[in-house]
Amino acid sequence: MGVSSRQKIEVSAGHPYPVFLGANLEDLGDYMLSRFGNIEQALIITQPVVAKHYADRVRQGFKGCRVDLVTVSAGEGEKSLARLSALVGEAVRLGADRLTLVVALGGGVIGDLAGFFAGVFMRGIRFVQVPTTLLAMVDSSIGGKVAVNHPAGKNLLGAFYPPLAVWTDFSTLASLPWQEVQNGLAETVKHAVLGDPDLFAFLEEHLSKILERDPLILRELTARSLAVKVRLVSQDEREQGVRALLNLGHSFGHALETATEYEGISHGRGVSVGLVAASRLAEERGLIAGADVQRIMNLLSGLGLPISVRGLEAGRLVQLMAADKKNRFGRKVLILPRGIGQAVQVEDCSDEDLRRAWAGVIDSNFPIS
Amino acid sequence: MGVSSRQKIEVSAGHPYPVFLGANLEDLGDYMLSRFGNIEQALIITQPVVAKHYADRVRQGFKGCRVDLVTVSAGEGEKSLARLSALVGEAVRLGADRLTLVVALGGGVIGDLAGFFAGVFMRGIRFVQVPTTLLAMVDSSIGGKVAVNHPAGKNLLGAFYPPLAVWTDFSTLASLPWQEVQNGLAETVKHAVLGDPDLFAFLEEHLSKILERDPLILRELTARSLAVKVRLVSQDEREQGVRALLNLGHSFGHALETATEYEGISHGRGVSVGLVAASRLAEERGLIAGADVQRIMNLLSGLGLPISVRGLEAGRLVQLMAADKKNRFGRKVLILPRGIGQAVQVEDCSDEDLRRAWAGVIDSNFPIS
Repeated sequence: MGVSSRQKIEVSAGHPYPVFLGANLEDLGDYMLSRFGNIEQALIITQPVVAKHYADRVRQGFKGCRVDLVTVSAGEGEKSLARLSALVGEAVRLGADRLTLVVALGGGVIGDLAGFFAGVFMRGIRFVQVPTTLLAMVDSSIGGKVAVNHPAGKNLLGAFYPPLAVWTDFSTLASLPWQEVQNGLAETVKHAVLGDPDLFAFLEEHLSKILERDPLILRELTARSLAVKVRLVSQDEREQGVRALLNLGHSFGHALETATEYEGISHGRGVSVGLVAASRLAEERGLIAGADVQRIMNLLSGLGLPISVRGLEAGRLVQLMAADKKNRFGRKVLILPRGIGQAVQVEDCSDEDLRRAWAGVIDSNFPIS
Repeated sequence: MGVSSRQKIEVSAGHPYPVFLGANLEDLGDYMLSRFGNIEQALIITQPVVAKHYADRVRQGFKGCRVDLVTVSAGEGEKSLARLSALVGEAVRLGADRLTLVVALGGGVIGDLAGFFAGVFMRGIRFVQVPTTLLAMVDSSIGGKVAVNHPAGKNLLGAFYPPLAVWTDFSTLASLPWQEVQNGLAETVKHAVLGDPDLFAFLEEHLSKILERDPLILRELTARSLAVKVRLVSQDEREQGVRALLNLGHSFGHALETATEYEGISHGRGVSVGLVAASRLAEERGLIAGADVQRIMNLLSGLGLPISVRGLEAGRLVQLMAADKKNRFGRKVLILPRGIGQAVQVEDCSDEDLRRAWAGVIDSNFPIS
């Protein structure tokens, strides 16, 4: 795919930055070096398997500039303060300083970890997001949120630290395991439900092509999905209003991830179940028709995503939700769908409401993995 | 001292904030609660000895608001990721959330640690600096720099995260150990040398009153000293220009602190020796007269501050300076005095220049402590 097919979408935040779609990994260095001066070192932070496939393609673009590579193993467990500390030691050993550009090459874990590293190393150095998974492309690379986990909660330590740019090369999707594609699809369904009914219909219509991983369809749904996020983030970078709608399904999903200690259930699968729980709660309140909840469940199931979990206890999950960052004045803040294509924030859910919502998705007939 | 004597100086940064001088600890809560809405909890982060003297005075002002206290023991060693992690666990246990106000009650270590905690907890919650040491009053509480140390370097992980306000109650100076007062005096001499010749003359003139810890003189030098910092920070919050002048003596001083692993030599004493090393280098380059270097050394000595160290090796110290955050393109960036009252940034010092500067302050006749 040539340069001519490169699309650019601007995120208009406090520090505006461009999102490039259909870009080539090989062209990143040239773009960064010509657009931003004073880059002395490109420090690629990635995972071993991603490095194997793509590091050389990134490296060749940074001509006349030192390029170093640090790999961290895969998994949400890597998003820790211990890993951050090790990264700092490695970076200093490799001569990183204020003129280093961090290249976050990988999925959501790498983007969050490398972004937070860039945000706090020497009080902040420059970085670029290079998402290689569908989840990172449609969601986590956009919006400037970076973080690491803590035993007391997911993403508990972080910052709003926007990248200089987001650089998306669709060719990286080809080598992605199907379960990774599913993670991105869960966020895409979420974006459709909260902000784009046409995207929802598109997903329903092209379900079989998505399952075949048709590149053009994947590209189209990526562009539409991330457009929903770009729109909300541009209106409200610091999440004091509409950006919170993006948390649809996440208060439930995070509790699931915490309950399984970040390893048992992937982010996308947590969001999928969370979306169902939120939809059922919304139905109970008359915010969404039962038929639409059924459409959401059908689409998620059709994509091979879970709509229920087993082996977990509703009361425990309600407790875990009490630690959610979005809570205010001790009240649970939840995002619920209003039909398909809109969402609202509610603050009056009781623990009993939540317990019922959880009970509705805890089932022994639908194993989670 | 009544409310009527409260002075206010505005720091005009990206997020402007007021510095109150001569305020009362008891009045902080009322000010914060009436000025900033939605504070559900005040989380005082402090050290045991400071808590004993002052926590109740702070606590009584926060009426109708939950107040919790976390203490961390004294010392630069507390400014670590491990301590940050423990703090996060404590905060969650105490129910901290986005409506928590962090009260950084203490010296520079507390301000840096609690400020960094506030900056990254849940991607940033509000905080107020309540400096209780002279060093924190004249220097570290102003300017929004927060950080923790890393084995690979001092303040290597941090952020620019300005407080909502700085609240200075001079009564806390009365109980301060003399060595702590000296730490603040070292920064005050530095501020005088780099930006206020009248302050330098004031310090020389009132040397005996300073040694007697005359409260009015201490108050006056604090106000003048922090005014130098407020002026530079307001011009250049992110340290891309004039703010760097505040690093006078610090590139040398940090190397000393690192060489002694943060425990052997206090920040102020490191700055004092660093100021002499920088002055000698400046003299060698014709930037400052020998007589003025002598005035600087006389003033520091008069205040009981060290002007040399022993038991350290110049070559090792030069090596440690290579890791300084201010270096660019592998070149050492140094601030040198130009006479008394001005400073300049230079980037052309060789390792040999630095070695000579270090050799000039390494001496067996002046024990450091």
